[in-house]
Amino acid sequence: MAMASPHRILSRHHRIPFKFILTRSFSTSTSRPQNVPHLRTYDPHTSLSSLRVNPSRLLNTLHHTSQWGTGHRYGAHPTETGMSRLALSDSDKSARDWFVETTKALGCEVSVDEMGNIFAVRKGREGTEGKAATFVGSHLDTQPRGGRYDGVLGVVGGVEMLRVLEEGGAETGFPVGVVNWTNEEGARFPISMVSSGVWAGEIPLEKAHGLKEVGGGTATMRGELERIGYLGEMPASHEAMPMAAHFELHIEQGPILEKEERKIGIVKGVQAYRWFTVEVVGQEAHTGTTPFNARADPLLAASWMICLSNRAAASFDGALASTGILTLEPGSVNTIPGKVKFSLDIRAPTDKTLDMLEKHLRSDFDNVVADATRNGQEMSVTWQTDSVSSAVYFHDSCIKAVRDSATAVLGDENLAREMTSGAGHDSVYASRRCPTSMIFVPSRKGISHNPKEYTSPEDCAIGADVLMQSVLRFDRQRVATEG
Amino acid sequence: MAMASPHRILSRHHRIPFKFILTRSFSTSTSRPQNVPHLRTYDPHTSLSSLRVNPSRLLNTLHHTSQWGTGHRYGAHPTETGMSRLALSDSDKSARDWFVETTKALGCEVSVDEMGNIFAVRKGREGTEGKAATFVGSHLDTQPRGGRYDGVLGVVGGVEMLRVLEEGGAETGFPVGVVNWTNEEGARFPISMVSSGVWAGEIPLEKAHGLKEVGGGTATMRGELERIGYLGEMPASHEAMPMAAHFELHIEQGPILEKEERKIGIVKGVQAYRWFTVEVVGQEAHTGTTPFNARADPLLAASWMICLSNRAAASFDGALASTGILTLEPGSVNTIPGKVKFSLDIRAPTDKTLDMLEKHLRSDFDNVVADATRNGQEMSVTWQTDSVSSAVYFHDSCIKAVRDSATAVLGDENLAREMTSGAGHDSVYASRRCPTSMIFVPSRKGISHNPKEYTSPEDCAIGADVLMQSVLRFDRQRVATEG
Ligand SMILES: [Zn+2]
Ligand SMILES: [Zn+2]
Repeated sequence: MAMASPHRILSRHHRIPFKFILTRSFSTSTSRPQNVPHLRTYDPHTSLSSLRVNPSRLLNTLHHTSQWGTGHRYGAHPTETGMSRLALSDSDKSARDWFVETTKALGCEVSVDEMGNIFAVRKGREGTEGKAATFVGSHLDTQPRGGRYDGVLGVVGGVEMLRVLEEGGAETGFPVGVVNWTNEEGARFPISMVSSGVWAGEIPLEKAHGLKEVGGGTATMRGELERIGYLGEMPASHEAMPMAAHFELHIEQGPILEKEERKIGIVKGVQAYRWFTVEVVGQEAHTGTTPFNARADPLLAASWMICLSNRAAASFDGALASTGILTLEPGSVNTIPGKVKFSLDIRAPTDKTLDMLEKHLRSDFDNVVADATRNGQEMSVTWQTDSVSSAVYFHDSCIKAVRDSATAVLGDENLAREMTSGAGHDSVYASRRCPTSMIFVPSRKGISHNPKEYTSPEDCAIGADVLMQSVLRFDRQRVATEG
Repeated sequence: MAMASPHRILSRHHRIPFKFILTRSFSTSTSRPQNVPHLRTYDPHTSLSSLRVNPSRLLNTLHHTSQWGTGHRYGAHPTETGMSRLALSDSDKSARDWFVETTKALGCEVSVDEMGNIFAVRKGREGTEGKAATFVGSHLDTQPRGGRYDGVLGVVGGVEMLRVLEEGGAETGFPVGVVNWTNEEGARFPISMVSSGVWAGEIPLEKAHGLKEVGGGTATMRGELERIGYLGEMPASHEAMPMAAHFELHIEQGPILEKEERKIGIVKGVQAYRWFTVEVVGQEAHTGTTPFNARADPLLAASWMICLSNRAAASFDGALASTGILTLEPGSVNTIPGKVKFSLDIRAPTDKTLDMLEKHLRSDFDNVVADATRNGQEMSVTWQTDSVSSAVYFHDSCIKAVRDSATAVLGDENLAREMTSGAGHDSVYASRRCPTSMIFVPSRKGISHNPKEYTSPEDCAIGADVLMQSVLRFDRQRVATEG
């Protein structure tokens, strides 16, 4: 089993003090926290770095929104259900309505574009009207059998930021905003992140509007936008709604932070990945009458390839290789298969590393076939490329804002780590048009897209604090450079 | 790839002279061969060892019977079709009728038992009436998409033996016979070798009679026996129809003889085999967000197990391990499976070797799981036993008869080799009740249960010669011991 040594991880576990968690106090009231400074107008000499979210209000809000599209119940506690809030469904409309009302009540200007993306913008200091806002963004739609945190935490974290700023009367240098992106999951209309993709100019509006819901229904995206009243008039475009930056708070959807007992992932980008279907053709034969030297067993070859793919990926920094599908023909206990196909999903933090890994694997697989055919049996391997996604690199200034904020909030830089996202997010498209970074918080057991998806209230609050601080730091930086 | 060195095989190839094939003459007429001695009555001092079959008559007969149940055409030549003669079908009835008429015309007494097994017995020397015959046996039924040789060659070889004896007027010491066993393939009524199994007392008559045809039809074995007129009155039993011995000529259905350029397999028995379903349960996870050290990947584990099973089997003399079925859940490109099941078919010439191999593999698989779980991930492996078949050891006296006959017919003992059958045959059940052995002839590319199944006319004739000589040698031996 080609796996990294566990010892490095384990030894780190025991070095991390848990005083942070033990000493941090969590308010259970919704009253204004005591540490909020009173700032009526923007003052570059007054630090906002002591601003913190209200943890219980944050969590109450998150669970409040779960009333729309409540999903599968997995435990007895009221919050122990998943979510089933497909994009542009009635429950999504209710969540959207709440978002619009809430942000309007907080003094924001709310606009909706042709893709139903909702932008809530809070004014900056005088004279910055019309300037691009620094945005927090994520999504309120969920998987059909998803959890309470994926996407929702990011939007609710943005709303909490608006509340903290508003109740503290804090004025930012430039406008700040929160965006709810439409159909991020791609679970109802089958393109993920489709609406940030249109905003970024990378997916044509017509294509997006024409998307039919999955599962055989006839509803289109445009039709559903119209039906629930979220087909806005503003063009879905980074030109109509420019952003100074895009910060996204999201659950990790992986086990790394939990495993390493860290609190914050400073997301530097998104992995490159490539999906292949590898087909190995050998010779169908009887298991009882065909000795090893007369076999061309494609399943044995494929098995060895899968082992080698894991071994090779483990030797490249941050790379992964995985097989999730394997089919064979004809599929009989006493027949050596004649043909095996398997999916190969390879990933790496950079395109260059992924290039090297792919090259390595093509050579490995050729060697397996050469070995298998040394006996005069015929075997072949072919690769079909199914999907290619280049690495995404987030913006240094945003990454720095997140890093500095994490250190400030956590008080210990070892409680944060840099990461590369293994999943796609709206931040990928946002990053094409503005400086972007993401903030990850731990996912229990790495589980996501599942009702049992869970991030502790403490971790949600830490994430929201880092999110807000990142926006405020970026804003300060912006004042310093733009004036 | 755990495979035996090819060099041993290749070097042998080049040592074998082909003079045998080049110098043997094949009659193309159906007139009586010149080498048949004229023997009216049994004479222990007159050797029958020069008796040879008529190759063209043998092949003509084989192809003649293929008119009933002609199958898939794969080439332009009239004989380039497969067979589709399911047991107790109308075409099987026609082939049976031919067998009964032909053997009766050759002076045989023909009897049919309750399973439709047809026994054609040729008298021995005077005073041996009622003594058990030395039998040649195989089957006239085929797979639905089978070939012309599997089973048929054995029956036709028996008929050719009767013809040679009859035209030579040769009298044997004891009766000799040919049996056509019903539904050997198990392709229509789903128990293979069911009728020799009933004869041997190992399968209850009622169970066999009650078998329903596969594919959703309602026909039962008993009903079809009755319908085509082959529900005999004689009990299907080794007591009602005892055998002095059972010899079976059969195509190898594997590539060994062809690969080693040998002509005859002296079959010493049938491999032991065991079929298992191995289930590996790990942890379903996202391929992009789950680093190697947080994975419990059951497909990676299963792949390694498949590699190890091949490696281990190759280290035991004559053993095999094969996987023909592999399924996984949930089956998505970017999801590491949570569960993998695969079939494991292990075989060896002896039960003891198979015991050792199984023990070895259980330990190997446990180690794989232990390796995979060292990181704190949970994984388990469980074995389900689906089928167990003990090794079958044929009878020394029959094996000797085949070996001596092969040497005599081939003139070079290196053109024969001892083998263990990897497939089941009626000889397995026969061997429970009487001395038994089998004779294998080469299968082109090891292909069987396929229209393209092919054994050259020369090899068919050699096999039939060895078959006949084995019966005659066994008969001589019987005279020597029984008087
Ligand atoms: Zn999400
Ligand atoms: Zn057969």
